[in-house]
Amino acid sequence: MNSETKPDAILLASCPDQPGIVAAATNLILEHRGNILDLDQHVDRDANTFLMRIAWQHADASFKEAFSAIADRFNMKREIRDPRKRSRIALFVTRESHCLFDIMARHQSGEWEADIPLIISNREDLRPVVEGFGIPFHVFPITKETKAEQEDQELALLKEHNIDTVVLARYMQILAGSVLEHYKHRMLNIHHSFLPAFPGAKPYHAAYARGVKIIGATCHYVTADLDEGPIIEQDVIRVSHRDDVQDFKRKGKDAEKIVLARGITAHIGHRVIVYGSRTVVF
Amino acid sequence: MNSETKPDAILLASCPDQPGIVAAATNLILEHRGNILDLDQHVDRDANTFLMRIAWQHADASFKEAFSAIADRFNMKREIRDPRKRSRIALFVTRESHCLFDIMARHQSGEWEADIPLIISNREDLRPVVEGFGIPFHVFPITKETKAEQEDQELALLKEHNIDTVVLARYMQILAGSVLEHYKHRMLNIHHSFLPAFPGAKPYHAAYARGVKIIGATCHYVTADLDEGPIIEQDVIRVSHRDDVQDFKRKGKDAEKIVLARGITAHIGHRVIVYGSRTVVF
Amino acid sequence: MNSETKPDAILLASCPDQPGIVAAATNLILEHRGNILDLDQHVDRDANTFLMRIAWQHADASFKEAFSAIADRFNMKREIRDPRKRSRIALFVTRESHCLFDIMARHQSGEWEADIPLIISNREDLRPVVEGFGIPFHVFPITKETKAEQEDQELALLKEHNIDTVVLARYMQILAGSVLEHYKHRMLNIHHSFLPAFPGAKPYHAAYARGVKIIGATCHYVTADLDEGPIIEQDVIRVSHRDDVQDFKRKGKDAEKIVLARGITAHIGHRVIVYGSRTVVF
Amino acid sequence: MNSETKPDAILLASCPDQPGIVAAATNLILEHRGNILDLDQHVDRDANTFLMRIAWQHADASFKEAFSAIADRFNMKREIRDPRKRSRIALFVTRESHCLFDIMARHQSGEWEADIPLIISNREDLRPVVEGFGIPFHVFPITKETKAEQEDQELALLKEHNIDTVVLARYMQILAGSVLEHYKHRMLNIHHSFLPAFPGAKPYHAAYARGVKIIGATCHYVTADLDEGPIIEQDVIRVSHRDDVQDFKRKGKDAEKIVLARGITAHIGHRVIVYGSRTVVF
Repeated sequence: MNSETKPDAILLASCPDQPGIVAAATNLILEHRGNILDLDQHVDRDANTFLMRIAWQHADASFKEAFSAIADRFNMKREIRDPRKRSRIALFVTRESHCLFDIMARHQSGEWEADIPLIISNREDLRPVVEGFGIPFHVFPITKETKAEQEDQELALLKEHNIDTVVLARYMQILAGSVLEHYKHRMLNIHHSFLPAFPGAKPYHAAYARGVKIIGATCHYVTADLDEGPIIEQDVIRVSHRDDVQDFKRKGKDAEKIVLARGITAHIGHRVIVYGSRTVVF
Repeated sequence: MNSETKPDAILLASCPDQPGIVAAATNLILEHRGNILDLDQHVDRDANTFLMRIAWQHADASFKEAFSAIADRFNMKREIRDPRKRSRIALFVTRESHCLFDIMARHQSGEWEADIPLIISNREDLRPVVEGFGIPFHVFPITKETKAEQEDQELALLKEHNIDTVVLARYMQILAGSVLEHYKHRMLNIHHSFLPAFPGAKPYHAAYARGVKIIGATCHYVTADLDEGPIIEQDVIRVSHRDDVQDFKRKGKDAEKIVLARGITAHIGHRVIVYGSRTVVF
Repeated sequence: MNSETKPDAILLASCPDQPGIVAAATNLILEHRGNILDLDQHVDRDANTFLMRIAWQHADASFKEAFSAIADRFNMKREIRDPRKRSRIALFVTRESHCLFDIMARHQSGEWEADIPLIISNREDLRPVVEGFGIPFHVFPITKETKAEQEDQELALLKEHNIDTVVLARYMQILAGSVLEHYKHRMLNIHHSFLPAFPGAKPYHAAYARGVKIIGATCHYVTADLDEGPIIEQDVIRVSHRDDVQDFKRKGKDAEKIVLARGITAHIGHRVIVYGSRTVVF
Repeated sequence: MNSETKPDAILLASCPDQPGIVAAATNLILEHRGNILDLDQHVDRDANTFLMRIAWQHADASFKEAFSAIADRFNMKREIRDPRKRSRIALFVTRESHCLFDIMARHQSGEWEADIPLIISNREDLRPVVEGFGIPFHVFPITKETKAEQEDQELALLKEHNIDTVVLARYMQILAGSVLEHYKHRMLNIHHSFLPAFPGAKPYHAAYARGVKIIGATCHYVTADLDEGPIIEQDVIRVSHRDDVQDFKRKGKDAEKIVLARGITAHIGHRVIVYGSRTVVF
């Protein structure tokens, strides 16, 4: 896609279904001399919910305001994003480095239109790796007593750096306070099982104990209910009796990093709409 | 999807890309009091081709004619289908029965909105199976000399039964004459490799000889160039050194029947648009 | 594999691990002038369990007795099977026909060295399909009161027909009595989720409600704990927001029938060893 | 696997099939007081070739010599490896960094028992990345005229560093001279298609032009015939009409790096036997 065919506006919209929504939106874009490049639309009939993503060119300054009338008319939740604006991502890590390395590799090779101004951890372990990539590394040790306060500090730091997306890249603490609240549906986690199988700690041990023939990974938005957030992406890897727990971990790392990367790509590409406990990934 | 939410019209459209196509089409549907249930749209930027599928309710009789103006304006190839009209499928088979059984099972359980009024073969082998399913079985033996003539006879029979879709379910003859011409982009074949690897005869032997670790199957529209038609669906199955050619064949059969069934589902659901040598499967 | 290279004996063995087991077994086969065609061996180090499958030719009548000494020495559980002896399978079905059709297709095309002398159901629904295949169909209606007694009747029928393998092909009753006891580790079930996710009834509804991006199927041996038996085979299929519960069911059927067939292939090929709650599939 | 259960010897053997090979080998190990941890055996009946891998503990110094008699008796090609000896790998790269990063991440996290003493390129592009990982980077620019001579220089360098395994991690030159000769079946390449589809240059462009629904990657040993070497591992990724050539490249990178890593894992774990144009991966 050369620059001439890149969109300069993306609409993500959801509302109760009724006739005329697509026509209303596309007409308004046309009136504002926009050129639609991609339109994806879906109706969840069980939930009677209309969902749509439109990417277009030549969006003008007055569109956003003009769209308010449509949004009001259809009782629509919507975001209008400028895809030329680079995402600002903060990573949270603990000790496992595979997702970190994978994200750094994509970042350095320019795969994403995103900046990663800082990386946060609850431990010092990955400092050499992070600093090798030239990214500031902030450590907030967490204890039961300091947890809420540290999370507030982290939030302050995230805000200071205008972070719009938080990625938990095998971060081994639960963020349940102010960060979670502020980054609702903007904080992605990778869980090392095909949820809802094996939630919680040590999923590979649990998978091994159950004798499964496939293991997996799940990228989801973080919510207050652990491992219950809306799923963005999942994938699996085949295992056999020859694989022990260590092999599950080794093979699973490949699924984790790929699934997390796909989740990030979808999120920062403004392709995900959350409704209820579900997602649409256009 | 209960009957209240089933579409009664489906538009498949392709044309050179330009602004305003979505708005024009959706407006016309709205004016005719239609309710859009699904809209899928894609622009192939390399080919500068706009492609769209719309499924809607409450299509009225005058829509089709009214749409001609839009089609002319945008130089649009289009089909407007009534999805409540059952497809009429003819199968061609030879000796292998796995695709035949699979299709019969789906047919009998009502998975498809389709009738299968007849099955054609160049051999008698599968007569007991076909007649066990209560479907008329017609045998047209093929020799080099009789080939063209027999194909004409087959075409006459297909027309007589108002067949709209021909499915080659491991039919081991090349249809290159009048049937092919008449059923262009309406005749599906299943090839037992992940094309373009291993075209032609005995792909499992060739795959074994090459020592591949995956085998596959490809559902494509039949064209005059053998195994070169637009691909609708592909899938693969993992093999190992423990599998010999017979195992490739056995495992491959599962891929073949599933891939063919997915191709049929897409085609009779009016989800496939062919442009150039490619397909869009909405 | 032509008949000259087919094995006439298969050993499935498990015992506490210690040095010398492979040498002892292979020496004995050699002494009895056997020719090993396949040997698969695995040690589960966590469980300190040695597991082995050997397939060989020219097994003589005296081998089995001679092997007892080795089995005693290593405290070995073992089965010695003659793979030329055809399996005798009974199917249990209820209303869903996709697994039934798939098994019938494989049966009729000779994919398995197996006979299917009868099919049992708790309902009449599938009688036409079953009788179309020329297989006796026995209906045992189940109520809470009659359940145990009916299961005893079923067991009597199974024994009468020398059934060695029971396959629950979407049988919607729980077999918890005499049949289960008699066919321990010889009764296979297909569950329509990737266990342990979504055990119990209506897994597709549950999967849809959770918003997963993959669905799956699990073939396992039936045990007294519902959906907790040792897993033989699993596979998954990708779904998207475009798929509703009906689509989950339709797509899932393909996974179910393929996974069940693979499980049956492994079981009747004498490739599965159960130990603890796990399987090795050689 | 703790150190107590790690093997200290691995045998990779192939020979014409005949009775008694397993017994002969396992007996000898037993006589030398070895404890077999894993034994994998396979007979390729078409090629009448026996193939076996044994991993065991407590290998003594005299075993290797004693085994010569068995090898001679069965006309056996074999390698006996000490898995505690770390592999010494040299990478060749050009401009693409994704495989390099992925290998570095695995290397740094200790996933492999391997050293990577140097990285070679025909271009300067990746120097900053490589040196960021603290690994010496050697550039040998290649022209038609200097090709053979440069390859000799590279071979001298590889020998100097006692390199046993060469990995072409998207190296965009053909090694056809002295390096290839010296590292026969010890030089791995990653090709960015599911071979034999799309050999040669620009496979993603070719795949896009053909309209395939899956793309893939192939790890194989390098031979004099380009992209024709014995395949070690392959995998695929699903694509759709929404993906253009750039998307193919982006998605394909994930397949490439994972497939290459699996190939390396198999090779340095002494799990691959090449025979004819094929591999067994135990």
